[in-house]
Amino acid sequence: MIYTFIPDKTSGRPIYIQLYEYIRDEIKLQHIKSGEKLPSIRETASTLRISKTTIENAYFQLLTEGYIESQPKKGYFAIDVKDYFSDQLMSISTKSIHSDSSSHVEARYINEDTHLGSIDLRIWKKLYNRILSESEDAVYSSGSYQGEYQLRNEISGFVNATRGGHTNPEQIVIGAGIQYLIGILSGIIKHDIRTAAVESPGYEKARYIFEDYGFKTIDIPVKGDGINMTALEASGASLVYVSPSHQFPTGSLMPIAKRLELLSWAEKKSGYILEDDYDSLIRFESRPVPCLQGLGKSDRVIYLGSFSKILTPALRISYMILPERLINPYLIISTRYTQSSSKLEQLTLSSFIKEGHIDKHLRKIKRIYSKKRDLLIPFLQKIWPGPITLISADSGLHSVVAIESEWTPEEITRLFDRHRILINIIRRSGTHYELSIAYSGLPFALMNS
Amino acid sequence: MIYTFIPDKTSGRPIYIQLYEYIRDEIKLQHIKSGEKLPSIRETASTLRISKTTIENAYFQLLTEGYIESQPKKGYFAIDVKDYFSDQLMSISTKSIHSDSSSHVEARYINEDTHLGSIDLRIWKKLYNRILSESEDAVYSSGSYQGEYQLRNEISGFVNATRGGHTNPEQIVIGAGIQYLIGILSGIIKHDIRTAAVESPGYEKARYIFEDYGFKTIDIPVKGDGINMTALEASGASLVYVSPSHQFPTGSLMPIAKRLELLSWAEKKSGYILEDDYDSLIRFESRPVPCLQGLGKSDRVIYLGSFSKILTPALRISYMILPERLINPYLIISTRYTQSSSKLEQLTLSSFIKEGHIDKHLRKIKRIYSKKRDLLIPFLQKIWPGPITLISADSGLHSVVAIESEWTPEEITRLFDRHRILINIIRRSGTHYELSIAYSGLPFALMNS
Repeated sequence: MIYTFIPDKTSGRPIYIQLYEYIRDEIKLQHIKSGEKLPSIRETASTLRISKTTIENAYFQLLTEGYIESQPKKGYFAIDVKDYFSDQLMSISTKSIHSDSSSHVEARYINEDTHLGSIDLRIWKKLYNRILSESEDAVYSSGSYQGEYQLRNEISGFVNATRGGHTNPEQIVIGAGIQYLIGILSGIIKHDIRTAAVESPGYEKARYIFEDYGFKTIDIPVKGDGINMTALEASGASLVYVSPSHQFPTGSLMPIAKRLELLSWAEKKSGYILEDDYDSLIRFESRPVPCLQGLGKSDRVIYLGSFSKILTPALRISYMILPERLINPYLIISTRYTQSSSKLEQLTLSSFIKEGHIDKHLRKIKRIYSKKRDLLIPFLQKIWPGPITLISADSGLHSVVAIESEWTPEEITRLFDRHRILINIIRRSGTHYELSIAYSGLPFALMNS
Repeated sequence: MIYTFIPDKTSGRPIYIQLYEYIRDEIKLQHIKSGEKLPSIRETASTLRISKTTIENAYFQLLTEGYIESQPKKGYFAIDVKDYFSDQLMSISTKSIHSDSSSHVEARYINEDTHLGSIDLRIWKKLYNRILSESEDAVYSSGSYQGEYQLRNEISGFVNATRGGHTNPEQIVIGAGIQYLIGILSGIIKHDIRTAAVESPGYEKARYIFEDYGFKTIDIPVKGDGINMTALEASGASLVYVSPSHQFPTGSLMPIAKRLELLSWAEKKSGYILEDDYDSLIRFESRPVPCLQGLGKSDRVIYLGSFSKILTPALRISYMILPERLINPYLIISTRYTQSSSKLEQLTLSSFIKEGHIDKHLRKIKRIYSKKRDLLIPFLQKIWPGPITLISADSGLHSVVAIESEWTPEEITRLFDRHRILINIIRRSGTHYELSIAYSGLPFALMNS
């Protein structure tokens, strides 16, 4: 056996960790069989042209975690981890392969990134530097619990203009990620509401936070027009988490009739709709669908927005728009929670929006992502041996495709994994599979090659 | 009645909000009595030399929130809010005055800031810009769940060198604030531990998070040598939150014998000590006391550290050091939680530490804060009419002082509030009061005036 490992020198991650991860995954995927002898350190150093120390470090990590064992005078051997990982692989979630308990080196999927080079960093730097120079007072003090007023003001205008929202800065709470904000929301409503209905399939990280805060969660199936209303009615829940404008991961759009039905449901139940509008600014064949939050005069929608998809997930700035009726309950508990987003980057983003750079940026990324969307199927065809049918790709930054295959979900996932592409299997019926695949981070060079 | 309002033009906050807040507080504090007629808009504009529009906006906000009412052809009158706010004032917490449900403009206390101008922003900007220019790949992708490896590596070295820690990067989890990290810790241990012992008086924001995650919290009294061990034993808890190196807010230091006793307690209970080391790098009369985390070979200490006190709270970067035994349990749930600290600022901070700027910065702020500490009592003497005795000021960024007064806690708090100084009343016995007061943000110009 020889290693077909190629170090990624641009990733900034130590080579020994990359090698450790490669060997670990080969063992987990049974490409290296239980009990199989590994190449010696000297031999590996020579074939891979990597220093002996690096190989030693990688082997040491594998030893520490118990993936391999050392037999005196014989060498290193792979441990039997088959049973453990085959359990893990039972789950349809593709993440599980990389997020098991013994992995501390995180998988990096290129398709989940935003487009390299899309942000005008010259401007971002200039604005950041200006905040540091001109707002010295702000640099040395705590940020607002609720988020900097300037940014809340800009976001309010932005959501009203681009998403048809109906909001003012007092309703907005800034936080470092949707999860943090759902945590605050849980704190606001926990005395009235103890059950949350969530989309299935849906965004698991939302569910986790509800569970952490002691909520019972109920799965509601999602079809082509969004969440199943009959199941929602039957659930008894009075809070529902939905992504109506571009459901994750199925990509479905909730039509207006169902939106109104959902709003009526919330009124009738005196409940709440938690609208996650994570990537709805990007729409290709039609104008963006206005958000639920601004529809009619509903005061029962909590809106979640983020700059992760339209700018970059490296920046941790998200926001929640509370309905008027929840502002006072929020203010009562607001000082319990410190602000989680950097004040310096909040103020930078505020200027970035105020000075119009965000609008220019949005026009630019729409062009870029429209091209990537068109290139996706031909690109996937280079990886996947059989026919691929496009199911939905009108909006957002992921497409849904169908394939026919005799393979198991794990085998399909593994193939894409090898290309550092994360897929989500959202439906399976015999040999028919539907996959959700993000394309925002795929480089043109790769797609066109 | 006339307003003695002076706008703070350097704060960056709109004048109308400052005026609104001033009048609101005057009403809440009953300096403007219920039913009292307010000066007219025209009159106020003329005496304060502020535009009519600004006064109108402030009055409109007060009307909206119901602090004042408009009587046609008669003018504006203060509403009776006495009962409501006197309830609020029952609490000894000084924050409550400003954090009630009807206040959406947050109080700003100058003494809680870090020293204006202490950070070499020229270097910080250079490093941030360099990250954006040279690590483009990092700019457009999600951060590590656990925190950027480079930063974890630097923090590990930093804590080992400056705090006597015993840690490696694999044990470190980065997050935007201690609260977020306590949330993750709760997720790790919640199946084993459901009760948390907390210091009383102590850092309330830690308690809140435990409660949000469904933990029962038990108050353990704090004296001159830290937490009361007898009460801790009696509590039955197997997790305790402590700040042994500089207790918040009493400033007490836990002596070595008690530290060892606490470690033995954790071993015996198979429990955990959550060590909050929020400002222990600053110590004046002795060398910093090594943290519990590095003491002996204990694998039952969870360490919490932050850059809020030594750099600035505007930057949201904190860290948790897990004991080895909790690394695997953490890794199992790690991908449930998105990273909350900005990747760009994590990488900037990493370079700031790596290139030695943090050491230079620490030497500088120690000199600054040592001077401020010496100026604190004479400065307070200008505000407080009676004698002030220093109780503790050897470390950290707050001092504890004693006063004798016939006043109520609310009256004392109000006096300092008017100078935008936050105090914490930590003990009261008849006319004897002990106050904890941060001094890091007090400007030399003010202290020396």
